[in-house]
Amino acid sequence: MDIPNLRWWGWGTLDQGYALENRPRFWPTLKAWLELPEELPSYPPPSLEAIELRPTRLDDPELASLKRLLGEEAVRTDLQARVEHACGKSYCDMVQLRQGLIPNPPDAVVYPADEGQVAALLEWAAGRDIAVIPFGGGSSVLGGVEPPPGDRPAITVDLARLDRLVALDRASWTARIQAGARGPEVEAQLNQHGFTLGHFPQSFEFSTLGGWIATRAAGQTSTGYGKIEDMTQAVRVVTPVGIIETRNTPAAATGPSLLQLLLGSEGAFGIITEAIMRVAPLPQVQDYRGFLFHSLEDGLAALHELMQHGPRPTIARLSDAAETATFAVLAHEHHGLRALLDRALESYLSRRGYLFGSSAIARALRGEIDPSRGAVFLLLGYDGTAEAVRKPWRSVNALCGDHGGTALGQAAGRSWKRDRFAQPYLRDTLLGVGVMVETLETATTWSNLPHLYQEMSTAISAAIRASGGGPGYVMTHVSHVYPWGASLYTTFLGRQVPGHEIEQLREVKQAATEAILAAGGALSHHHGIGRDHAPWLPQEVGPLGMQALTALKRAFDPQGIMNPGVLLRGE
Amino acid sequence: MDIPNLRWWGWGTLDQGYALENRPRFWPTLKAWLELPEELPSYPPPSLEAIELRPTRLDDPELASLKRLLGEEAVRTDLQARVEHACGKSYCDMVQLRQGLIPNPPDAVVYPADEGQVAALLEWAAGRDIAVIPFGGGSSVLGGVEPPPGDRPAITVDLARLDRLVALDRASWTARIQAGARGPEVEAQLNQHGFTLGHFPQSFEFSTLGGWIATRAAGQTSTGYGKIEDMTQAVRVVTPVGIIETRNTPAAATGPSLLQLLLGSEGAFGIITEAIMRVAPLPQVQDYRGFLFHSLEDGLAALHELMQHGPRPTIARLSDAAETATFAVLAHEHHGLRALLDRALESYLSRRGYLFGSSAIARALRGEIDPSRGAVFLLLGYDGTAEAVRKPWRSVNALCGDHGGTALGQAAGRSWKRDRFAQPYLRDTLLGVGVMVETLETATTWSNLPHLYQEMSTAISAAIRASGGGPGYVMTHVSHVYPWGASLYTTFLGRQVPGHEIEQLREVKQAATEAILAAGGALSHHHGIGRDHAPWLPQEVGPLGMQALTALKRAFDPQGIMNPGVLLRGE
Repeated sequence: MDIPNLRWWGWGTLDQGYALENRPRFWPTLKAWLELPEELPSYPPPSLEAIELRPTRLDDPELASLKRLLGEEAVRTDLQARVEHACGKSYCDMVQLRQGLIPNPPDAVVYPADEGQVAALLEWAAGRDIAVIPFGGGSSVLGGVEPPPGDRPAITVDLARLDRLVALDRASWTARIQAGARGPEVEAQLNQHGFTLGHFPQSFEFSTLGGWIATRAAGQTSTGYGKIEDMTQAVRVVTPVGIIETRNTPAAATGPSLLQLLLGSEGAFGIITEAIMRVAPLPQVQDYRGFLFHSLEDGLAALHELMQHGPRPTIARLSDAAETATFAVLAHEHHGLRALLDRALESYLSRRGYLFGSSAIARALRGEIDPSRGAVFLLLGYDGTAEAVRKPWRSVNALCGDHGGTALGQAAGRSWKRDRFAQPYLRDTLLGVGVMVETLETATTWSNLPHLYQEMSTAISAAIRASGGGPGYVMTHVSHVYPWGASLYTTFLGRQVPGHEIEQLREVKQAATEAILAAGGALSHHHGIGRDHAPWLPQEVGPLGMQALTALKRAFDPQGIMNPGVLLRGE
Repeated sequence: MDIPNLRWWGWGTLDQGYALENRPRFWPTLKAWLELPEELPSYPPPSLEAIELRPTRLDDPELASLKRLLGEEAVRTDLQARVEHACGKSYCDMVQLRQGLIPNPPDAVVYPADEGQVAALLEWAAGRDIAVIPFGGGSSVLGGVEPPPGDRPAITVDLARLDRLVALDRASWTARIQAGARGPEVEAQLNQHGFTLGHFPQSFEFSTLGGWIATRAAGQTSTGYGKIEDMTQAVRVVTPVGIIETRNTPAAATGPSLLQLLLGSEGAFGIITEAIMRVAPLPQVQDYRGFLFHSLEDGLAALHELMQHGPRPTIARLSDAAETATFAVLAHEHHGLRALLDRALESYLSRRGYLFGSSAIARALRGEIDPSRGAVFLLLGYDGTAEAVRKPWRSVNALCGDHGGTALGQAAGRSWKRDRFAQPYLRDTLLGVGVMVETLETATTWSNLPHLYQEMSTAISAAIRASGGGPGYVMTHVSHVYPWGASLYTTFLGRQVPGHEIEQLREVKQAATEAILAAGGALSHHHGIGRDHAPWLPQEVGPLGMQALTALKRAFDPQGIMNPGVLLRGE
């Protein structure tokens, strides 16, 4: 039921990674940017055997009763299961796991076989005042799957066995899918019938449909296929007071949307068991191409115009100069003909005034230019039939050209696509050498985007330095783009302060979040609330918003057994 | 503040109407279809002076206190104000008004000048246990604006003075607009700046932004511009426990959507005072064209394909054979050259096998063909620049042709557009001669659409006959179309049973609603719940859905003063 070879102390599986061979610029540049020591420290991953876990707080009669309910195999209390389900995948989670610290492991991990078992389990837990933590892929970066601290026992419910496409309605382009299906399971089952969900978050390989719905996730192609809430036509949720299913209809005027209440409920109201998803025909072609602009302003202007006046892309990601520079830093070194071509392209771009590539990096490292003032990279792509995806490029090229952009062609698109799910592996490498690295995201309107970007970037840079993290490095892309605005996704790096890694991250995160909220950004665009954002939720939704959410929590979960402390801090 | 010349006993204003001159086929056909007597009865509209209204139940100190709060002019207890705000515009409302029956008039009608006054008013009412009925255009057809029966006094809050475009964000394509702005006020203020909201319900001339949001309305161009919930980026609502404003962001992952809780709240949680709406550039051209198909199956197949594979239209309405026949019945009689052209077109269509036009009507009246087996009319339209709206037609024509459709050209589109807001006036004419006429609507997936259509149509026809209404006439169009399904909008006519008009309508409505729910249709796609659908809401949303809605009601309106009995029956 579990993914084999899970890298429990980091991202993904042990057989995958982010290869740094043939990327010779990476380490020297990183050391220069972050002012790392020449000799990097080494923090090797821990071994499972060395982990000392609090014994399960469920007694033998309780465990026996659970096993009678769900089956012997479906109830696990072994070290591996409890460790693998002890937390999500945030930087703080990783730091603690690497140190062998697991403060709040679940007391058991269970794998219900069907909705009936989920319902029976909630009844069982409610009768014993045991907390229930729904678990999809466990890729929350905001503490969404960690059991609560305190004395109350907690059971984690892994939905891995609910992984089937239950029904496909070909005429209506909808599919009933069980919530535990992981990205590849969702796509493989749909692809067989010629359909796709079109939801590809960075966590795609490990996260689940239920997790996406519970957190209001967004995939990389959200600009074309929509955010998960746009794709979800109906849900079925088991709560401690019963099952709720919303009407399978493309739209309704039947009062407040119950569907939209359950979307984003983060396991605090119940467990999503299945959903009716809007699907689309599997595209024949995904034509993704790169463009380079002289500045973020130019790139933003082009993207803004494209989103409002079309042709609207399936995917759009605009990296700021700092992130664009890392693409150059992470570029593969080629040999022979490809090396010649690389140099020719760089020279061409340089003559046209784009600060990009190895020469720009070299100049930046010599202090001659500021990496945040260089060229910016825009990825655009269209999914569809071969004919349909050919059409837009003529006007896209013209539009980008009007804003000083240069087309880099499909190679840039292919190279982005190749690494699209791999970046989280690089984080493990960085954690192994004492580098703090974390991501955060927000969204706002077009008119407020430059202000929010500036305020957030400045606050994060200042906080990294204040935390003792050195100069740090902050890079952002604009993605999940709408006619009315866009999200900002930021990655920041700094030197770890040994012994204070968690506090250090918390300081930076606090500064970033306060800057985001003060500048009018959303508390989250697609990561969610979890435990980590919960203290700021009142600021985001106001006192009446909190009253409404609390009222809903009490209606669905009167005893407060569902994912306590997630979404609603005090509940 | 009020609309002058309001036809308080019917639809719209006294200076407008639905002219039946030059439509010589109308009365004979209607008489034949409904088996009406040759000599029609006459029920003239009532005179305001003849209305006997229950005196206001607010005492002088209460009225004086209200006037101190809102200003002398803003508090009305005169007959006209109370009658004009006593109910909505359903068939039952009209029947009762024409009989001079106004069982539940408001005890006062107030016109707050701003949000502060709305908040003060709610506090005032809560302190006195007085019910508050929010009132936009008063065009509810489900009892959404009628004060509750019983002894508790009720004040109707007309938002007419909150009618301004407060701020336009040109870059983000959003506009902050006050909730009391009527359709023409919304559009005029946006059009000045080159924008449109694109929301044109049949009630457009009289209904308001706040009403649309409160009921989850849909305009005729919803297929292109979206339903009102797709257009609303943020709302501001005054509730009895305070003001709630949702975040101005294109999307978020901050828990359940509070915006989507307030959308469709029908005044039961509070009063919407303003909203940030997504707007679009005013289209240079609206190119609307008609097509004729041999059967509903053919038309549905074409529309289905068009919605899934594009080019997706701004507007799409497919009338069944019965509704298509009424277009012929309601066609103007032309003279001279236009009459020749009309005959040439009919003859052309007839040779191609389409049962349409005066000859088909004549044959139907002789019993030679069944009007429900005739040709069906599809209206399609694109909004945009002159260049953009030219493009789609080549493939649209080909697609329709593949399904046996024939293009009727722009004249059909123009003729539909001319009458688009006029049809409700025709109802007044019919009520004046003893004809029952009402509309209802639902939505479902593409795969379920034919089944729902059949079940609903059959149930309504049978119920009209069973109610003593004669053979009746039931006609439906598919509109508000999505890739995943569509709504069905049905108009039904029958002979009134004198003295039992209300019971008769209720019988038909009940049969229709039960058939809709049994066949998997939504309780409403865009009319809402009001008082009339409230008994069926538990069936639509289930017991847990009701618990959630009740919990929200108690959180926002603990004393239950807001629009009692609307949306939630017992609250």
